[in-house]
Amino acid sequence: MTTTALPESLPDETHGRVPLYRTIADGIIRDIRRGRYQEGSRLPASRALARTHEVNRATVHQALQVLKREGWIETNKGGGTRVARRSLAGPMVGPAPSWDRISSALLGRILAETGAQEGTNAPAHDLARLAPDEKEFPAEAFAKVLAEVARDGALLAYGSPFGYRPLRETLASRLQRRGIPADADAILIVNGAQQGLDLITRALVDPGDAVAVENPSYSGALALLRAHGARLLGVPLDAEGPEPEALRAALAERPKFLYTIPDFQNPTGLLASAARRRELVAAAAAAGVLVVEDAFDADLSVEGDLPQPLAALAPGHVVHLGTISKALFPGVRVGWISGPREFVHRLAALKRVGELTSPPVLQAALNVFVSRGDYDRHLLHVKARLRTRLALAHKTVLRSFPVGTRCDRPLGGWVLWVELPGGISGRALVEAARGEGVLVSPGGDYSPDRADASSLRISVARSSGADLEKALESIGALARAAVRSAQRRAPRAEERREEALIQI
Amino acid sequence: MTTTALPESLPDETHGRVPLYRTIADGIIRDIRRGRYQEGSRLPASRALARTHEVNRATVHQALQVLKREGWIETNKGGGTRVARRSLAGPMVGPAPSWDRISSALLGRILAETGAQEGTNAPAHDLARLAPDEKEFPAEAFAKVLAEVARDGALLAYGSPFGYRPLRETLASRLQRRGIPADADAILIVNGAQQGLDLITRALVDPGDAVAVENPSYSGALALLRAHGARLLGVPLDAEGPEPEALRAALAERPKFLYTIPDFQNPTGLLASAARRRELVAAAAAAGVLVVEDAFDADLSVEGDLPQPLAALAPGHVVHLGTISKALFPGVRVGWISGPREFVHRLAALKRVGELTSPPVLQAALNVFVSRGDYDRHLLHVKARLRTRLALAHKTVLRSFPVGTRCDRPLGGWVLWVELPGGISGRALVEAARGEGVLVSPGGDYSPDRADASSLRISVARSSGADLEKALESIGALARAAVRSAQRRAPRAEERREEALIQI
Repeated sequence: MTTTALPESLPDETHGRVPLYRTIADGIIRDIRRGRYQEGSRLPASRALARTHEVNRATVHQALQVLKREGWIETNKGGGTRVARRSLAGPMVGPAPSWDRISSALLGRILAETGAQEGTNAPAHDLARLAPDEKEFPAEAFAKVLAEVARDGALLAYGSPFGYRPLRETLASRLQRRGIPADADAILIVNGAQQGLDLITRALVDPGDAVAVENPSYSGALALLRAHGARLLGVPLDAEGPEPEALRAALAERPKFLYTIPDFQNPTGLLASAARRRELVAAAAAAGVLVVEDAFDADLSVEGDLPQPLAALAPGHVVHLGTISKALFPGVRVGWISGPREFVHRLAALKRVGELTSPPVLQAALNVFVSRGDYDRHLLHVKARLRTRLALAHKTVLRSFPVGTRCDRPLGGWVLWVELPGGISGRALVEAARGEGVLVSPGGDYSPDRADASSLRISVARSSGADLEKALESIGALARAAVRSAQRRAPRAEERREEALIQI
Repeated sequence: MTTTALPESLPDETHGRVPLYRTIADGIIRDIRRGRYQEGSRLPASRALARTHEVNRATVHQALQVLKREGWIETNKGGGTRVARRSLAGPMVGPAPSWDRISSALLGRILAETGAQEGTNAPAHDLARLAPDEKEFPAEAFAKVLAEVARDGALLAYGSPFGYRPLRETLASRLQRRGIPADADAILIVNGAQQGLDLITRALVDPGDAVAVENPSYSGALALLRAHGARLLGVPLDAEGPEPEALRAALAERPKFLYTIPDFQNPTGLLASAARRRELVAAAAAAGVLVVEDAFDADLSVEGDLPQPLAALAPGHVVHLGTISKALFPGVRVGWISGPREFVHRLAALKRVGELTSPPVLQAALNVFVSRGDYDRHLLHVKARLRTRLALAHKTVLRSFPVGTRCDRPLGGWVLWVELPGGISGRALVEAARGEGVLVSPGGDYSPDRADASSLRISVARSSGADLEKALESIGALARAAVRSAQRRAPRAEERREEALIQI
C-alpha cells in the first residue's frame, strides 16, 4: 500500500498512452508465458534486459517494480530476481470443496427437489408457461419511456430499500381504488411477486413451521415454502374458494400464514366469491393468522370488476402482493407488497441486508407508463385477447376431451383447469402430449403433497386461435384414448377379481 | 366460476364502451357508498330500480348479477336482495398479528441490529457513502443503449435464472484476461455483489457455522453474515493482506468459507500483495476451505494492473464476485459470481426459487455498453478523478490530522483508512464531525465484534477538490482537539492513581 516505490510518472490513462516501462513489462510477461523465462528461474540482470529491450536501466527498473507488484517476479534477500511460481498445484492444494458437505440445510432442501436448468427449446405448442407472449408486449412504448427516465443519473444510483417513491404513490392510489387502505410508506417494491413471497417466507418461517396453502396452489410458491422447511397444510377448493371447514381446521394448527390467490387462482383459474372472501378473512383474523393475498392476476378480469380484495376487508391481517409480470412484462421484475406498516418495514430490513435496493430506473419507467395510462390501455388489449382465448379453450376442451371431463370457463387470468374422468394420470397424459409437441402442466405439480392427480392446467398465455385449438384437440384425443384403454382394462380387472373370488 | 349466469353481451373494453347494466350497477354502488342503501338493509325491488334508473328489468337483473358477484349485495333464500355487510369489524376480527411472535429467527437477528430507514438528507460533506456520484454517470449514453435494446420484447420476458447469456460471455472473456479460467456456463448474474454474497451465505451457512473474515471488513457483509447466524472469525490485516498466522488459525476452525477483498479492501483500501495472495489461497486450499473473493473494486486501480486475482491462482477453490456498482451505476444492480461450475449451478437454483430471474433488459444494455468499449472509456475518466482525489485526501490527512496518525495512499478504489493516535474513539469523532456537517464512517463499524476503534474510513466517492479538503481539515481539527483533551486528562488520571495509592 506504500506508494514511494512506485514510478511517479504514472501512465496517462486518460489519453490512453502506454508508458515505455509498461511496454517493457508486458514484453517480459510474454516471455514468461512463452517459457523463455521459466518459473522459479533467475531473470537476466537489469543491465542485460536494458540491452535486450533497447532502453535505459531506469526504465527496466520501473518495469521490474510493476512486475513485482503484479506477482510475476520475486526478489530474494540476496537481491536476485526470479520468475515467481504463479501456478498453485500439487500437494500444496487440497481437493476442491465437497459442495454437499458444506451446503446449508436450505440449499439441501432446494436441491432435493429441483435443479437449475437453462430454458429448453420452444415446443410446437406451449400450453404450459404462464407468461405473456413477448411478441405482444408494448416494447416500443416502454423503450421510449426508459430512454427518457434513464437520462436522470439519480435513477442509476442506489435507491431506497423500499423502492422508488413516486411508483409507490401511484400504486397506493391504484390499490385505494380497489378499497385497500394502502399507503406509500407501507409499500415495498420487490423484484416480482416471487421475491415478495420469498421475503415474507424468510421473515416468518423457520424449518418445521406450518403454512396453510390452497390445494392445489402455485407450484413456485409450494417449492419456495418447502425450501424453507415449511410444513404445508393444504386446504381444498370448492366452487367459491377455499372450503370453510378445511380452512378452519388448518387455521386451528396456527400456521405462520395462509397463502391464498383469490383472483383467477393458479392453477384452477377460480375467482373466489365475495362471500367466501369475507368468510376466509374473518376466520383467519379470528384465529390470529396472517393472510398473504397473492393478487398476481388481479388486473386480468375479463368480465367487470372483481370482488373486494382481502386486504380491503381486514387490512391489519392481510399482506397484499401485486406484480406486473402477468399483465405487462415479467422480465422487468417489478412487484409490490402492501400491508401493515410495521411488517412491511421489517420486510424492507430483510430485503436491504441481502440486496440493498431494486433498480430505480425500471421502477421510474414503469411509474411513467402507468401514470400516463399506457398500462391501462395495454390491459384493454390483453383482456380482449384473453377473453377470446379463454372462450375458445373452454369450448375446445368441452368438445374434444372425454365425457366426464370438468372444465369451467374462468372470468379472467391466463389458465383453465381441466379435471379428467376415470382416474387418468395427469402426469402420464402430459408425457404423451409432450411426445406430440404439446407442453401442458400436470395437476399434480400444484399439489402440496406432489401426488399425481387427474387434472391439467392449461395456459392460454402463449397460444391462440387455430394453434390453441389444435393443441387442445390433440391432448383431448390422448385423454380419450386413455379412457378407452382404461375401460378395456377394467373388465379384465373385474374378471381377475372374479377369478380371485373363485379361488378363495 | 360458472359462466351461465353471466350476461353474454360482454362489455366491449377494447373500444372503451361501457354497457348500460354496468352504468346502472355503478349507480347503485354510489348509492350504497353514500348511505342511501344501508349495509344489511333490503334493496328496492327490481321493478322499482328499473323505474328509478329508467331502464328495463332485464338490464337491472344484469346489474344485480354484477353487484352480487362483486360482493355489494346478497340474495337470501327467500329471494330478497340485501346490501352486503362489506366491512369486517368488531369481535369477529381478532387483534393484528404479533410480528415479534411470528418472526423467523433470521428476521429476529436482522432486527436486533438494524432497521430499514429511508435515506437521510444529504449532508454538507459526505465522506461516508461508498457510492459513485450520480452527477458523474454516463447516463445519456446508457439511456440510448437502453432505448435500443428495450425495443426487443424478448428482453422484457423472463430470462434464464443464470442471467443474460451474451453478458455472461462478455464477462467470461474479461475475467479470462485477468487469468481467471471463467466460463459463461459457470457465471451467475446477480442483483449486485451484495446479492451474490447473500446467495453464497444462504447456500452455505446454517446458524452457528463459522465464517472467516478480514478484520476490519465490509460492514454490509458482516451484517449479512451475522443475520444468518454465522460465527465470525476475524483475521487481522498487515501491510500485505490477511496475517498468515492468524489466517491459518482461523482456517483450522474449518469455517464454511473465507470472505476476502484483495483489491482496495473495504474499509482499508489495502491492495493485497501478489505473494500474500498465493499464500492465502494455498493455505485455504490446503485446509479445504472455500475462498470468496469480493472483487468489487477490481476495475478501479489507478496505478497499472493488479496482482493476479485469487480465482486465477486456484480456480477450484475460489468463488469470484464482481459488480459494476462502484465503477459505473450502483442502481442498475448487476453483479456476477464466477466459480466452480457445480457450485454456481447450486446458487442458480437458490436464486431461481426466490426470484426467478434478474431483469434481462438491464443486462443486455450493460452488455452493449461494455462490448462497445463505453465502459472502459468511462473507467478512464473515473480513474483519473480517483487518482486526483486519493492523492489530495492523502496529502490533506497527513497535513491536518494529529501527529501519530497513520494513513497510506491506496493504489485504487474509493476509500482511505485513517488510524488515529492515542486511543481516540472513532465513533466519538464521527459524531463530532456530523455536528459540523461532515459524514464519515467510524472504523468500529467494520469490526467483526463491532467494538469501537481508533480509526476512520474516508470515502472520496462523493467529494472532491476544495470540498474534500475542507471536510478533511475539519475532521483533522476535531481529532487534534481530541488528542489535546486526552493529553490534558492524562496527568489528572495519573494524579488520581497516585491519590489512590496514597489512600491505600
